[in-house]
Amino acid sequence: MSKLVVVGTVAFDAIETPFGKTDKILGGAATFIGLSASHFNTDVALVSVVGGDFPQEYLEMMKNRGMNIDGIEVVEDGKTFFWSGRYHNDMNSRDTLVTELNVLADFNPIVPEEYKDAEVVMLGNLHPAVQMGVLDQTPNAQLVILDTMNFWMDIELELLKKVIERVDVITINDEEARQLSGEYSLVNAAKKIHEMGPKYVVIKKGEHGALLFHDGDIFFAPALPLEEVFDPTGAGDTFAGGFAGFLAASGDYSFENMKRAIIYGSNFASFCVERFGTERMQSITNDEIETRLKQFQALTKFEMKA
Amino acid sequence: MSKLVVVGTVAFDAIETPFGKTDKILGGAATFIGLSASHFNTDVALVSVVGGDFPQEYLEMMKNRGMNIDGIEVVEDGKTFFWSGRYHNDMNSRDTLVTELNVLADFNPIVPEEYKDAEVVMLGNLHPAVQMGVLDQTPNAQLVILDTMNFWMDIELELLKKVIERVDVITINDEEARQLSGEYSLVNAAKKIHEMGPKYVVIKKGEHGALLFHDGDIFFAPALPLEEVFDPTGAGDTFAGGFAGFLAASGDYSFENMKRAIIYGSNFASFCVERFGTERMQSITNDEIETRLKQFQALTKFEMKA
Repeated sequence: MSKLVVVGTVAFDAIETPFGKTDKILGGAATFIGLSASHFNTDVALVSVVGGDFPQEYLEMMKNRGMNIDGIEVVEDGKTFFWSGRYHNDMNSRDTLVTELNVLADFNPIVPEEYKDAEVVMLGNLHPAVQMGVLDQTPNAQLVILDTMNFWMDIELELLKKVIERVDVITINDEEARQLSGEYSLVNAAKKIHEMGPKYVVIKKGEHGALLFHDGDIFFAPALPLEEVFDPTGAGDTFAGGFAGFLAASGDYSFENMKRAIIYGSNFASFCVERFGTERMQSITNDEIETRLKQFQALTKFEMKA
Repeated sequence: MSKLVVVGTVAFDAIETPFGKTDKILGGAATFIGLSASHFNTDVALVSVVGGDFPQEYLEMMKNRGMNIDGIEVVEDGKTFFWSGRYHNDMNSRDTLVTELNVLADFNPIVPEEYKDAEVVMLGNLHPAVQMGVLDQTPNAQLVILDTMNFWMDIELELLKKVIERVDVITINDEEARQLSGEYSLVNAAKKIHEMGPKYVVIKKGEHGALLFHDGDIFFAPALPLEEVFDPTGAGDTFAGGFAGFLAASGDYSFENMKRAIIYGSNFASFCVERFGTERMQSITNDEIETRLKQFQALTKFEMKA
């Protein structure tokens, strides 16, 4: 079985949406990526850090879903990273209310010995120095996928560019692609980003779907139109996790297979937003995934007459 | 050959975009719809009004493209409808600088006798009373398509609703669908709009594509990712014209065929935005349309493994 190393935050989130609010619940990029990637036939290992306040039951849940958590460092006298945010009425924008880095401030990632030969590495959104640290420990990776945010472009652009140079796939949202490239058109933005290193550029547009760019070719996957979006937190990470998990399980990193991976990522993300935090991701069944896959297939399918 | 009656404005536009500005050029909903619809094997008749200031050469151009212009009333001592607008940097929003109704203020549409038995009627965006007037003159229509705007929802909602009751297809943008239905989710908005009358609801999302809703089924057509959007003016009308023209020519008003019609509409719209006003629409060739059709097919195509 192939190995997939995921680095990212494991966190507490407190979320406010037009539909309600939560106390501190389980969150973090690595958490959402892991929950999504572990649906596939690949050996998923999380690399992260939490404080002594992190509930053992959350770690047990991850193990029960087949994730290796040896790479999650527990700093007993530290506190877990905490993020709190409030979504606006349209759910497309949010305000960050609180960011407490806590144990994340001094995080030095250690990839467990038996995962240093991982075939696929998913660098979830966090400090580019941490992403670089994981890259340095996984020299045999055949596919490296990077997720990042405008925040790192603002404060650590040079280091981030060095990470970008070394990855095969970058996943960012449309505004971030524009910021990174200085180009408004996403077609031109993707070209500039290709020149920075990644052979594949995935631009996430939230409810407007996702674009995959490779060597002049473009693939577009819509988001599934939903009656209700309850909480968008983690949707991008869930997308990335489905994408990475599918590719790791198949071992096929071609453009054609990346299309399928994007559909799976979109599929998982469509579930993620239906409940607060990780709730929906912990309950989805294979039948539900298959049913929704058929909806994705029907959504864009058309035949021109001969 | 089937007949397609199009009612809408024929106008002068003055446009400002980040790429430049124009003096008064040819514009108007019926103009763009006609330019697009006349690419298909259907007999297109425009119903509109212009002033004595409207250049004969524009009318000749329409005739040369096979449009019947007997229904374009020329008010010799009146002035043609004039609209002027400025697009913001992102091209997704614009300010209206000038609106001079002129001859449009007293427009009483007359459908030419030989088009009163038209199979397809395209009600372009203008006052719902005018749209209703055309509907009353085309009792044999098998397919009626309505395009409208938030402006009419603001000031003529009750009359607009009476028009909506009588149409088969409504095409509006996402914000207008939300305004009309009071629902934020487009899935729920489409349900509410179905209940108002139209069996088919097309929601245009500009650069984010278009959705077709029918009886619980959803089809999504992306917009073609473009390197450059030069002037979005008329893109929605061009989309509607391609949609209506394709359906009129085929005589097949099924959901499956509407999917193709939406792809054609998106195809034409992708050309429209490449130049100011109608410029690009006057120059496209069948080869260019076919080439782009292949790009549309490739854009969303994927095969899941068995």
